[in-house]
Amino acid sequence: MDSKPVALILGSDSDMPKVEGTVKALAELEIPCDVQVLSAHRSPDRVVEFARSAEERGVRVILAAAGGAAHLAGAIAAHTNLPVIGIPIQTDALGGVDSLYSTVQMPAGVPVATMAIGAGGATNAGIFAAQILAIGDTALKERLKARKLALEQSVGDKNRRVQERMREMGWGGS
Amino acid sequence: MDSKPVALILGSDSDMPKVEGTVKALAELEIPCDVQVLSAHRSPDRVVEFARSAEERGVRVILAAAGGAAHLAGAIAAHTNLPVIGIPIQTDALGGVDSLYSTVQMPAGVPVATMAIGAGGATNAGIFAAQILAIGDTALKERLKARKLALEQSVGDKNRRVQERMREMGWGGS
Amino acid sequence: MDSKPVALILGSDSDMPKVEGTVKALAELEIPCDVQVLSAHRSPDRVVEFARSAEERGVRVILAAAGGAAHLAGAIAAHTNLPVIGIPIQTDALGGVDSLYSTVQMPAGVPVATMAIGAGGATNAGIFAAQILAIGDTALKERLKARKLALEQSVGDKNRRVQERMREMGWGGS
Amino acid sequence: MDSKPVALILGSDSDMPKVEGTVKALAELEIPCDVQVLSAHRSPDRVVEFARSAEERGVRVILAAAGGAAHLAGAIAAHTNLPVIGIPIQTDALGGVDSLYSTVQMPAGVPVATMAIGAGGATNAGIFAAQILAIGDTALKERLKARKLALEQSVGDKNRRVQERMREMGWGGS
Amino acid sequence: MDSKPVALILGSDSDMPKVEGTVKALAELEIPCDVQVLSAHRSPDRVVEFARSAEERGVRVILAAAGGAAHLAGAIAAHTNLPVIGIPIQTDALGGVDSLYSTVQMPAGVPVATMAIGAGGATNAGIFAAQILAIGDTALKERLKARKLALEQSVGDKNRRVQERMREMGWGGS
Amino acid sequence: MDSKPVALILGSDSDMPKVEGTVKALAELEIPCDVQVLSAHRSPDRVVEFARSAEERGVRVILAAAGGAAHLAGAIAAHTNLPVIGIPIQTDALGGVDSLYSTVQMPAGVPVATMAIGAGGATNAGIFAAQILAIGDTALKERLKARKLALEQSVGDKNRRVQERMREMGWGGS
Amino acid sequence: MDSKPVALILGSDSDMPKVEGTVKALAELEIPCDVQVLSAHRSPDRVVEFARSAEERGVRVILAAAGGAAHLAGAIAAHTNLPVIGIPIQTDALGGVDSLYSTVQMPAGVPVATMAIGAGGATNAGIFAAQILAIGDTALKERLKARKLALEQSVGDKNRRVQERMREMGWGGS
Amino acid sequence: MDSKPVALILGSDSDMPKVEGTVKALAELEIPCDVQVLSAHRSPDRVVEFARSAEERGVRVILAAAGGAAHLAGAIAAHTNLPVIGIPIQTDALGGVDSLYSTVQMPAGVPVATMAIGAGGATNAGIFAAQILAIGDTALKERLKARKLALEQSVGDKNRRVQERMREMGWGGS
Repeated sequence: MDSKPVALILGSDSDMPKVEGTVKALAELEIPCDVQVLSAHRSPDRVVEFARSAEERGVRVILAAAGGAAHLAGAIAAHTNLPVIGIPIQTDALGGVDSLYSTVQMPAGVPVATMAIGAGGATNAGIFAAQILAIGDTALKERLKARKLALEQSVGDKNRRVQERMREMGWGGS
Repeated sequence: MDSKPVALILGSDSDMPKVEGTVKALAELEIPCDVQVLSAHRSPDRVVEFARSAEERGVRVILAAAGGAAHLAGAIAAHTNLPVIGIPIQTDALGGVDSLYSTVQMPAGVPVATMAIGAGGATNAGIFAAQILAIGDTALKERLKARKLALEQSVGDKNRRVQERMREMGWGGS
Repeated sequence: MDSKPVALILGSDSDMPKVEGTVKALAELEIPCDVQVLSAHRSPDRVVEFARSAEERGVRVILAAAGGAAHLAGAIAAHTNLPVIGIPIQTDALGGVDSLYSTVQMPAGVPVATMAIGAGGATNAGIFAAQILAIGDTALKERLKARKLALEQSVGDKNRRVQERMREMGWGGS
Repeated sequence: MDSKPVALILGSDSDMPKVEGTVKALAELEIPCDVQVLSAHRSPDRVVEFARSAEERGVRVILAAAGGAAHLAGAIAAHTNLPVIGIPIQTDALGGVDSLYSTVQMPAGVPVATMAIGAGGATNAGIFAAQILAIGDTALKERLKARKLALEQSVGDKNRRVQERMREMGWGGS
Repeated sequence: MDSKPVALILGSDSDMPKVEGTVKALAELEIPCDVQVLSAHRSPDRVVEFARSAEERGVRVILAAAGGAAHLAGAIAAHTNLPVIGIPIQTDALGGVDSLYSTVQMPAGVPVATMAIGAGGATNAGIFAAQILAIGDTALKERLKARKLALEQSVGDKNRRVQERMREMGWGGS
Repeated sequence: MDSKPVALILGSDSDMPKVEGTVKALAELEIPCDVQVLSAHRSPDRVVEFARSAEERGVRVILAAAGGAAHLAGAIAAHTNLPVIGIPIQTDALGGVDSLYSTVQMPAGVPVATMAIGAGGATNAGIFAAQILAIGDTALKERLKARKLALEQSVGDKNRRVQERMREMGWGGS
Repeated sequence: MDSKPVALILGSDSDMPKVEGTVKALAELEIPCDVQVLSAHRSPDRVVEFARSAEERGVRVILAAAGGAAHLAGAIAAHTNLPVIGIPIQTDALGGVDSLYSTVQMPAGVPVATMAIGAGGATNAGIFAAQILAIGDTALKERLKARKLALEQSVGDKNRRVQERMREMGWGGS
Repeated sequence: MDSKPVALILGSDSDMPKVEGTVKALAELEIPCDVQVLSAHRSPDRVVEFARSAEERGVRVILAAAGGAAHLAGAIAAHTNLPVIGIPIQTDALGGVDSLYSTVQMPAGVPVATMAIGAGGATNAGIFAAQILAIGDTALKERLKARKLALEQSVGDKNRRVQERMREMGWGGS
């Protein structure tokens, strides 16, 4: 492990495809990110070791993705004062409500900042980490502004596609 | 801490009234029980220390009660091979569904045996611990049998009370 | 039926694929297991007969898997003082919340130790039975320890795969 | 027990106040009713004995009220071909969703006809039993018709009260 | 329409495959059944007309299947004193919880006897109708008894298949 | 009944306190409103009669409040092309989720415009009726604008109260 | 943008297939409709601009479709007194309960008239808009009446298909 | 308004008692906090104005508390790149699940970091803001460390109280 400012911890390597949005968002915003598979239940000592040493190794924001009885983010938050962001993974039986409740319903004293269930939440974890880091980083602030502007413009593009579709279907368009 | 066969761990002393049923059931079945307040999020090192040393200190079954993002039972189960029984505490906002999901939805490899939300679940945690210990303890087996018989008889008593009530209300009775 | 220490009862043979994890976990831990299809609603007398005679036939832990109005585990627990472990089967309409509530919300006096909905819960039922039996069985204790260690090591392997993937995608790795 | 046509079975005498509506509805419709406290989990043999002998003792419809992992109605239905009506009792933690799912989600082959959670459901269990019995009973049919008419008229009375209230509050009325 | 003792009303012809279990169960029990598509919301006058005239046309039990804001059973029950059985159809977005609540949560005075969401519930609606009709029909009672016995025996057959499977997988069998 | 432009239909007079916000909002906006107690299940013919004749009696918008299996709004909508607005009443057991699903999940062809569960939803039903009527009524449009402005100003007042409170508690204020 | 009386706003062009029912219903009822992609979160200024100017541009009813934390309808309603109709889009993880709650649970003062989750709700949004516009438009009233009649007749057609199917399956028919 | 680093925005002054934990946590950590009442639905222009100017006025983290269709945090996040933390207020009808879903289920691109429903979540919002600000503030880091230590020690104190209680009740203690 090294001194990248963001660490993304996964409960299982099978969650990797579900958090690619996180990695992509961070890459687009030029924020180096360390990805580790660590399990609150299967390798708990590694989680403690990671959480305790993260700050001095230069990590500044920790992201944790887990599903079911999703204790990973909370277990990390118990051992550090760094901001911890939880990504609740969608589950087969309960749709991810179990992951959401296990991640967000933390007791007073040990916060986990929770994102949406699913792909949107994974992307937003990366952006939120960037928003935290941007407080002391003007260049990153500019990249975030550019991203927000692009997002707004993409809505305009989508609007144009819908107008075309309306015309194709003979329903007019504006 | 000492060598009592059952340990009951609470996330907070405010949960004590909610698990009195556990303590009472164990007392009735003459099973010594050690009660400790330890928090998965607020005193995580104490939890690890407890879980790791429990077996060699003579603990044979661990009960853990917590509410909300209820990680306590799972955090203990991560560090021991002793049977861990989870008691999901009822919560104000979500009724305890959050506690239930956080306790029961454990990943493959690290089981937490979960009881009902609320007072019945707390009592049952004590009885279930006794059922485990009774496997190698004939005297305890007899006490459990007596308890089950008493339970059945109490239903008969309740039935008689209902017949009286029916007669009082002029609706007859059998 | 014979004197295997663990009995796994299914409400239907269609649940067999859903509880293979239970059978595998027990086989890996070298615990003989008797599997029976018995239905709380369709063959209730067989369930009573099984539950009542289990202890004297040498069964020490009973596992029961059912879905929907999942009464199987509770119906067995009503007739025995052996520890009963419930496995709530995922359902089509309600995802298994119906199975979970029907299994876990038992009244005071008759506990059912409930596992997670789905495959993880099935595997864990086998491991939890082993944890109970290990209380008086040093060799089994060692097998459980080895399993837990292997589990921890598998997380390390998964981590290595993720680092490779990160490098392949040009996102670095540690 | 005797040959009353309707039997109402309660899981606990504490449920008596919650099913008074059942008893009242049956009394108003002049249908004798036997009330018994029997528990699917605490006195299961008594439940089996009751269910098996009900038909020959002259019972024609069985009502069963229970809460939580509410197996009572289903346990009875497993042992009889008489129509069984389930009354899911409201619960503290989960509002009665647990009782509802445990009662209604029965597997193919063993139906339980389920009423609403709460007081309305209890009253309706009595009326539904009457509707079944009325198939071969013209006098009862007339009493049901009279009840339905009275119900309709009570809505008219309520309407008049609301008009008065509207006038009192200076909002007019029709 | 004619004088068949059971009428099965569907909100839409697209629900036909979902209630084939009802029709089959009734056919096996030799109970003639009239199936009609009538909608509480799209053809409400037809529903009223049907419900009002059902009794005098010889209908003795009414089954109604609908999904979403499933008012069909309740709308019929408002206009008749015949027993009305509701079948909540599984829905895409909410799994059928919407159908279940709309069907079962009827106010005091107008009961709808509700079956499980899904195929099992549809089958059970047919069986429950038979149980009602069997009160005054000894031959039907015998057919129901035979069905229940066959159901119990089918569990024995399933058990044998599982033992075979266990042997095939090298896990033994009893 | 008369020719007021808005009719508010209640399933029961006990719902009157829960919809006072509707009546007040309409009174403030100077819109005459007829309130009637009519039940989809207890006086269904009156509901049909009301719904069918509403338009020609001069009603232009219909509001309907009901709880549980809340069919009232849908039953009215089945018989008219006037806009029907549903107010789901909060319920004891399920919090009003049953009312909400029964009101909002209408099938294609028969819309019910649904408001929030509880007091806010009742008030909003009145305002929404006004927004519909304001399309052809400039004076009403002005009253709605004034109401919206007052609402915005009330937020400013609330803000001032919070600043005072902050100062009182020694936490400053702006 | 132009002066069409109905505007349908989508949070994303990917929602277009989900709201085709809205566009078709409006087209059948000969109501011109402007479709725009605007996002409450990604292009909030465009939403404000649209909502503020809608009335003077001739828009009379606004429909808004969004999923997840579905703020679009509410954000528009905050800026206009035109009637706003919300269409909650079904979501992958939570089935659309998130969309429904975010759309319907509006605070007192700012109503959003909410339709069902899914395709039926989308169609109904178009019909409800037509019902509003028909208040001052006799020709549209006639088209709505014709539509309702056709709907009723289609139920008759469906009924005939079911009778045929019953005969094909050898189950008779009426 | 001034240049305090944290702004806490409430949808209503009635939410003030529910977020006192936020204000207290920030006060204890010596972080100045500006509290404002602004409503996404009732004073939307003020929300936009606040969100747009926050960064240049020196705000570095924004906290937003709202209930029901809780759009406040999302509406602010749409207009700024500052980190926005959402506090879902518990609600009467739905317990706050509506608030939670409306706050957390944000679409990709516009994150809201969500805390638990209720008092614990309010306190944690203050602590999480501090954790963000501590990244560039060594003194604050020390205060957070001291707080975490005190939290751990308070668990020890609670444990001692439980031991006393156990002794008082005659159940022993360690």
